[in-house]
Amino acid sequence: MTLPDLSNTERTRHRRIREQGRTDRGDLFEVLSAGFVCHLGVVVDGAPMVVPTVYGYDESSLFFHGSVASRSLTQPASEVCVTVTHVDGLVLSRSVFEHGVNYRSAMIYGRPQVLTGDALLAGLRVLTEHCAPGQWDYARRPSRKELAATTLLALPLAEASVKVRSGPPTDAAEGDDLLPDGTPRWAGVRPLTPLWSPLEPDPALPPSTPIPPHLLLR
Amino acid sequence: MTLPDLSNTERTRHRRIREQGRTDRGDLFEVLSAGFVCHLGVVVDGAPMVVPTVYGYDESSLFFHGSVASRSLTQPASEVCVTVTHVDGLVLSRSVFEHGVNYRSAMIYGRPQVLTGDALLAGLRVLTEHCAPGQWDYARRPSRKELAATTLLALPLAEASVKVRSGPPTDAAEGDDLLPDGTPRWAGVRPLTPLWSPLEPDPALPPSTPIPPHLLLR
Repeated sequence: MTLPDLSNTERTRHRRIREQGRTDRGDLFEVLSAGFVCHLGVVVDGAPMVVPTVYGYDESSLFFHGSVASRSLTQPASEVCVTVTHVDGLVLSRSVFEHGVNYRSAMIYGRPQVLTGDALLAGLRVLTEHCAPGQWDYARRPSRKELAATTLLALPLAEASVKVRSGPPTDAAEGDDLLPDGTPRWAGVRPLTPLWSPLEPDPALPPSTPIPPHLLLR
Repeated sequence: MTLPDLSNTERTRHRRIREQGRTDRGDLFEVLSAGFVCHLGVVVDGAPMVVPTVYGYDESSLFFHGSVASRSLTQPASEVCVTVTHVDGLVLSRSVFEHGVNYRSAMIYGRPQVLTGDALLAGLRVLTEHCAPGQWDYARRPSRKELAATTLLALPLAEASVKVRSGPPTDAAEGDDLLPDGTPRWAGVRPLTPLWSPLEPDPALPPSTPIPPHLLLR
């Protein structure tokens, strides 16, 4: 299936630092695939509220829990902005003004829909498998009572803005290459990467509980 | 100087999962000290917008650039919500419903003020030294022209909500401890930590450019 490019609306058009803008849907999926926590923005009584929460996604929707921002998302079809950001490093330029961050980020705008019935179960599976692959089949599945206590939202992946900055500083030719004493001024990047550590078993487990293979693979 | 506890307003009172709430100002500073990128939420034409941006802070204010959300923050004293989140790991519980994330987060609400003159320079220094310690004295400082092109905002650290979740899953006693075949079901935490990698020099540097000591220390 070929999906259209990301929409180019007034608020997703790339204005500032346009060379960092991306318009391809594949760029959006790359950003979404690299993380599992987003920042959900909603408007409550006219003021912004930004809440971190887990997400999952398929080809057309982003899934996240509505309970984290319940005060606002109880209104049907409130507008949201969901932002996913990966910080890849510090850009240590020759001048303070040119300092910055290597990053990949996606901002998705829209009105999420509350899922029910089979769509709720399918969405929960997508969210769980994105955050913790293999756990949908291994952990105990949601009961009817738990499903009734779950508000899952689906936000269309239709109106989005993706931005990426990578690589070294770009101020080599701006006359700041020497320190006051005449020696060259160092410039470069300090990369930052999230690192998974070894699993920590729940102390309440029986001592010889086997670790399932799907948790060993990552 | 003793600072008061964080305010307890309608929107910062801990409602959901209250045991994760923190009210001490020291908890706020611990969250702020552990990162340098926040998510800034603003309201634009009645809809939320969430933008990642760098920050710094002192005892009473959070500093960040206004240009990232210029369309909204040109209105004087617009309300914002700034959220800083550290994802510390996945909580792999016995049931899907109990899955979650170990995290530390702070949400700060308020109306930021645009800084000018000496306050602008001081704020930029705080922001730069928080993100890239030592670079204020090493990199070329902002020129008058660059300062004129910089919109720096100060948000009071007055109305804030801090939440922390740590430790193993908590569903050991809920009857999900066995797999259908009768063997114990594994549960625990997969920790996640940001890791700094070795510095990458700008390829445009002269080959023997010395790395300054302040960049070697971290």
